[in-house]
Amino acid sequence: MENKKRGILERLNAGEVVVGDGGYVLQLERRGYVKAGHWTPEAAVEHPEAVRQLHREFLRAGANVLQTFTFYCSEDKLEISGNVTNITGAQINEAACDLAREVANEGDGLVAGGVSQTPCYLNSQNETEVKAIFKKQMDDFLKKDIDFFMAEFFSYVEEAVWAVEVLKTSGKPVGATLCISPEGDMSGVPPGECAVRLVKAGADIVGVNCHLDPLTCIRTVKLMKEGLEKAGLKAHLMIQPLGFHTPECNHSGYLSLPEFPFALEARAMTRWDVHKYAREAYNAGIRYIGGCCGFETYHIRAISEELAAERGFLPPASEKHGLWGAGLQMHTKPWVRARARREYWENLLPASGRPTCPSMAKPDGE
Amino acid sequence: MENKKRGILERLNAGEVVVGDGGYVLQLERRGYVKAGHWTPEAAVEHPEAVRQLHREFLRAGANVLQTFTFYCSEDKLEISGNVTNITGAQINEAACDLAREVANEGDGLVAGGVSQTPCYLNSQNETEVKAIFKKQMDDFLKKDIDFFMAEFFSYVEEAVWAVEVLKTSGKPVGATLCISPEGDMSGVPPGECAVRLVKAGADIVGVNCHLDPLTCIRTVKLMKEGLEKAGLKAHLMIQPLGFHTPECNHSGYLSLPEFPFALEARAMTRWDVHKYAREAYNAGIRYIGGCCGFETYHIRAISEELAAERGFLPPASEKHGLWGAGLQMHTKPWVRARARREYWENLLPASGRPTCPSMAKPDGE
Amino acid sequence: MENKKRGILERLNAGEVVVGDGGYVLQLERRGYVKAGHWTPEAAVEHPEAVRQLHREFLRAGANVLQTFTFYCSEDKLEISGNVTNITGAQINEAACDLAREVANEGDGLVAGGVSQTPCYLNSQNETEVKAIFKKQMDDFLKKDIDFFMAEFFSYVEEAVWAVEVLKTSGKPVGATLCISPEGDMSGVPPGECAVRLVKAGADIVGVNCHLDPLTCIRTVKLMKEGLEKAGLKAHLMIQPLGFHTPECNHSGYLSLPEFPFALEARAMTRWDVHKYAREAYNAGIRYIGGCCGFETYHIRAISEELAAERGFLPPASEKHGLWGAGLQMHTKPWVRARARREYWENLLPASGRPTCPSMAKPDGE
Amino acid sequence: MENKKRGILERLNAGEVVVGDGGYVLQLERRGYVKAGHWTPEAAVEHPEAVRQLHREFLRAGANVLQTFTFYCSEDKLEISGNVTNITGAQINEAACDLAREVANEGDGLVAGGVSQTPCYLNSQNETEVKAIFKKQMDDFLKKDIDFFMAEFFSYVEEAVWAVEVLKTSGKPVGATLCISPEGDMSGVPPGECAVRLVKAGADIVGVNCHLDPLTCIRTVKLMKEGLEKAGLKAHLMIQPLGFHTPECNHSGYLSLPEFPFALEARAMTRWDVHKYAREAYNAGIRYIGGCCGFETYHIRAISEELAAERGFLPPASEKHGLWGAGLQMHTKPWVRARARREYWENLLPASGRPTCPSMAKPDGE
Repeated sequence: MENKKRGILERLNAGEVVVGDGGYVLQLERRGYVKAGHWTPEAAVEHPEAVRQLHREFLRAGANVLQTFTFYCSEDKLEISGNVTNITGAQINEAACDLAREVANEGDGLVAGGVSQTPCYLNSQNETEVKAIFKKQMDDFLKKDIDFFMAEFFSYVEEAVWAVEVLKTSGKPVGATLCISPEGDMSGVPPGECAVRLVKAGADIVGVNCHLDPLTCIRTVKLMKEGLEKAGLKAHLMIQPLGFHTPECNHSGYLSLPEFPFALEARAMTRWDVHKYAREAYNAGIRYIGGCCGFETYHIRAISEELAAERGFLPPASEKHGLWGAGLQMHTKPWVRARARREYWENLLPASGRPTCPSMAKPDGE
Repeated sequence: MENKKRGILERLNAGEVVVGDGGYVLQLERRGYVKAGHWTPEAAVEHPEAVRQLHREFLRAGANVLQTFTFYCSEDKLEISGNVTNITGAQINEAACDLAREVANEGDGLVAGGVSQTPCYLNSQNETEVKAIFKKQMDDFLKKDIDFFMAEFFSYVEEAVWAVEVLKTSGKPVGATLCISPEGDMSGVPPGECAVRLVKAGADIVGVNCHLDPLTCIRTVKLMKEGLEKAGLKAHLMIQPLGFHTPECNHSGYLSLPEFPFALEARAMTRWDVHKYAREAYNAGIRYIGGCCGFETYHIRAISEELAAERGFLPPASEKHGLWGAGLQMHTKPWVRARARREYWENLLPASGRPTCPSMAKPDGE
Repeated sequence: MENKKRGILERLNAGEVVVGDGGYVLQLERRGYVKAGHWTPEAAVEHPEAVRQLHREFLRAGANVLQTFTFYCSEDKLEISGNVTNITGAQINEAACDLAREVANEGDGLVAGGVSQTPCYLNSQNETEVKAIFKKQMDDFLKKDIDFFMAEFFSYVEEAVWAVEVLKTSGKPVGATLCISPEGDMSGVPPGECAVRLVKAGADIVGVNCHLDPLTCIRTVKLMKEGLEKAGLKAHLMIQPLGFHTPECNHSGYLSLPEFPFALEARAMTRWDVHKYAREAYNAGIRYIGGCCGFETYHIRAISEELAAERGFLPPASEKHGLWGAGLQMHTKPWVRARARREYWENLLPASGRPTCPSMAKPDGE
Repeated sequence: MENKKRGILERLNAGEVVVGDGGYVLQLERRGYVKAGHWTPEAAVEHPEAVRQLHREFLRAGANVLQTFTFYCSEDKLEISGNVTNITGAQINEAACDLAREVANEGDGLVAGGVSQTPCYLNSQNETEVKAIFKKQMDDFLKKDIDFFMAEFFSYVEEAVWAVEVLKTSGKPVGATLCISPEGDMSGVPPGECAVRLVKAGADIVGVNCHLDPLTCIRTVKLMKEGLEKAGLKAHLMIQPLGFHTPECNHSGYLSLPEFPFALEARAMTRWDVHKYAREAYNAGIRYIGGCCGFETYHIRAISEELAAERGFLPPASEKHGLWGAGLQMHTKPWVRARARREYWENLLPASGRPTCPSMAKPDGE
């Protein structure tokens, strides 16, 4: 039955909005299933019910794509992490594919098999070794039923290009996102040039994910778009930013903030911040719009609600969400009833309740 | 097998710390299963997997008690809400008992059947009618296997007393919490007097829940304790505050904040805030320590970790949590590795990344 | 000619508003004539032009009273300070009287001879010794032409009572202000009781000055008023608060703030804050309304402008001040012209431009 | 006697630090002598004692230059302002020269005759008319004893060039400062090019003044320096920035901030902020270092103190200022004594005491 679903490129070629899912590792850390630090995805084997539930929430919130919970699931990373001893990377990858597939089939969801940056690249920059790692992970996925590949969270475009080159051999569509700032990748390659290299390597969809907040990520994707246009290349654009306000971040992204990773709460976006983000991303020509770390279920729902007219429908979870706060109309307190309107939430400047805290931090590191 | 578990009073009488669970309605609203406004718990029937998963997370995080997901589940409230048409309150109550029981039995958990304030009281103040509503809900619970009762979220001590009087007829232990400020209940009855009335009505455990932040709630429970001592009465103390910073809240609590309920993100407590709260609550003589709205899974884990020495064990979820950030020791960035220590997180003043927002709001309403 | 001026009690008895002057020591420190730490007033002798000019500004801004620049000008304090070697306290007191008199006579100003707390009291609590110090200072003043006495900046009501008892022997009216919080003086005597003691000792005018912000000081004066009413006593009320926002101050006042005394800038009140203060003070029944540390010339003008209708006139300095920003009507930038109205300034929440700074500090000390 | 003073170029050519004075119009507005809006300098005639006193404070604080209080004192501006009816521009210019000269001669001060942007330029861009206005003002100055000319507060380099061309005909040294951002003047001419044009027109000293905060102004002057170096030109560099934190300002400068001009208090720099500024300006190769709007007497003293080693002396006003808070060593409260050290003040992040206010504003206008 899933064969009948329209593929990712069919949708994007038709100009449709594709809503991505949110962040898994930070959310599952909070739920008790992922260990901060190495952030490896062994929960796909150890606690499938937790991963399944989060997939299901994103689907209900309107996500068209579920990424397999396989972040940092290369053998070299798992080994360094020390987080698993009797589970192999292959087991995790395969279990994660099954979970994503199972839930995707509860609705109109596609499954993206995800690969990410490797310690091997950082240590060796050896193309053969790095590509072998990607090949191994790809082969795990190909034993299962996935719709396309997603190479994400790359700090160096060179490694991402290698990933794309490997994944393209599968014959499936390939997306690629870098976790870079508008200044470019960690080697200083500007976003426009990064995009060009990825598309030339075969990527069908390019963009950015993680590390920086929505408005900064939109700027980076715009630079990618300009780079592609100048080079006469075409590709679909995607974006999966942080769900946090990080205006003061430097090139390193939110790793450099003093609050990373255990005190980011005050920076979390509201659903109304996400409305603005979704609209701006859409206006920038981006059609694959999701989130990364900090994007919770209701943030994905907010993307779906903001772009409901463009998509033609609301997600299932909107049955439980009065648009723009409409559910407050019946509240017993009159001043809360007065908040059941778009203008209220769009213009609110939310307080932190933390009067001894600053509003901006001095980033650490580079 | 569950019969062999030690009961709530056995544990409290022995001086043990009992960790409560966190907030259900706000969290399940974010996950897409509860509608803000009336906040009714039909998800227990409609989406049992979502409720089960949240119970499971709290249990893994160290909760000793799972409250049935039956907030606002009186027939009068359900009818007013318009949220359900073909499900009865009895169905929800019974499904919720089964879910809590099922998960509690996966560990050393007790099940508390929860009742809360009714619209009927606000409209009529008619003791017979209000008691009939509580009786009906109690009877639903008694068809199922629950360990004790919890009457919670009462703004008027009079209504809470009526609830306790009904619930005591079951022969099971009864806890009772009010959602009041240190100024007292909505009729102006001071906390000490509230506690006295509840205990005289038969409550075994008294305290506060919701509406105000942890430090404010501790002040209120201390006033309750003083009232009981002056009256020569004894009872166990409990607390389940908001997981938000609300220093400027007036008597009405966080309903009066402009950010309620859709822009509270920046006020969310960090896990380190919860460590301080758990310690202060313990030092105040409170032994049943949990959370209400805004308390997520990792906040409950933080209570368990702060009081691990007193309890003698860490919760299962701590397998996935390096204490005080220890998991960061292996991070690739040196400045992030430098954060793997207690002093760092205890002293950090987290920024909001929102420089155009105030730190405190002017409360609405009374 | 100055004999024809109506005296302070004549004015207050007639129900008139008396506008006090602002703070001398902090302002003259910034202008380069007072040394922070001991804050002694030798500038009256060393740089009379600087003191004269500040007097003149306050008079132009609408002040009805000029206090002699004799703060901390008791012999014991001068000696401890080490700030002067070849000038006596008597010389300073006399020079200060002449300066205030000279400028007061340029308009409808009265001169108040000021005495303040002594190191002697803190060290010895010896009534005879302390009274001898006040007597000496009073005698200096009586050689000159002053209209009434002001005993100000007392932390202990006992010392203030002694000062009043001495000053009353002059036959001139006596005002007395304490630098206390709503919790009372440093011995724990509540404000109401402090006021009663001062009036019983002979004070014609009582109130508070310095140490805390305007709204807090109004609360304290209200408590004084209640105390007097309960005791069946009558006295005029006065207030001369800080010109800084200090909402988090404890009993010790702004000395306990980390910013005292060299980084208080961000706390400075705007003229619009002063409008609110003047109105609230007036509404609380206070008729002698001025300022202390942090109150600059334009703050005094703001009092005069807010109470212009009650007083029946605007001060000379208002020739150079468009009310509520009216002077901006001709600005070249349209968005600045749009600020020439009361609503704009009354509702503005001014930013600090300091995003890495908190909004509230944790006070030091007791 | 003043003839024996070393001239401005002699000093700068010798590599000496020249400390400028602070801002007159904002400070005299607060003191009650200047009307906000048109900000014209009629006080030089109407209230010479106020202007004289402010000159004297700056001199005592270490200023080597006193600028005549002739801001906006062109006939066209005075007429538009409506602020004076029976005083001519010539009268103000001449009185202002006398005042500056009188005070400068009390110490080692030089007098700079200041001209600034004209309404005529904005309306007509007519070189002949605009130059005639500058010529008239220059002739007023030349009747008096001034040491050099300062053309300041120009938004368009073209008008500044015209001013320089006129002033150079006097045979006296000429300085020229623009009130521009790092983006360049209002026509889009970049800072480097602006500097080149000014030097080619004959300016001996070039730089920026007003409109933006110290660190931003330093960036602009650095760009000027680079421009001059590229063009193979030489000139002395000067800087007189705002005394306010304005990090969010756009091209228009602080006029665009909602707080301009009546609620800027919270943005005021501390003396410690000025220490950092003075050091950075010095390190950037700037040798004429002063301030503009918001720079009060104690800010100028802070420049003098930071650069005391380079200059070889402290200013007279430092007799009344314990360096780095040393004066607090004798304070009665132990926690205040603990603040008598450089580290304390350098690292303090001052709170605003305004918890309902944001830290950054959204600028108005362009």
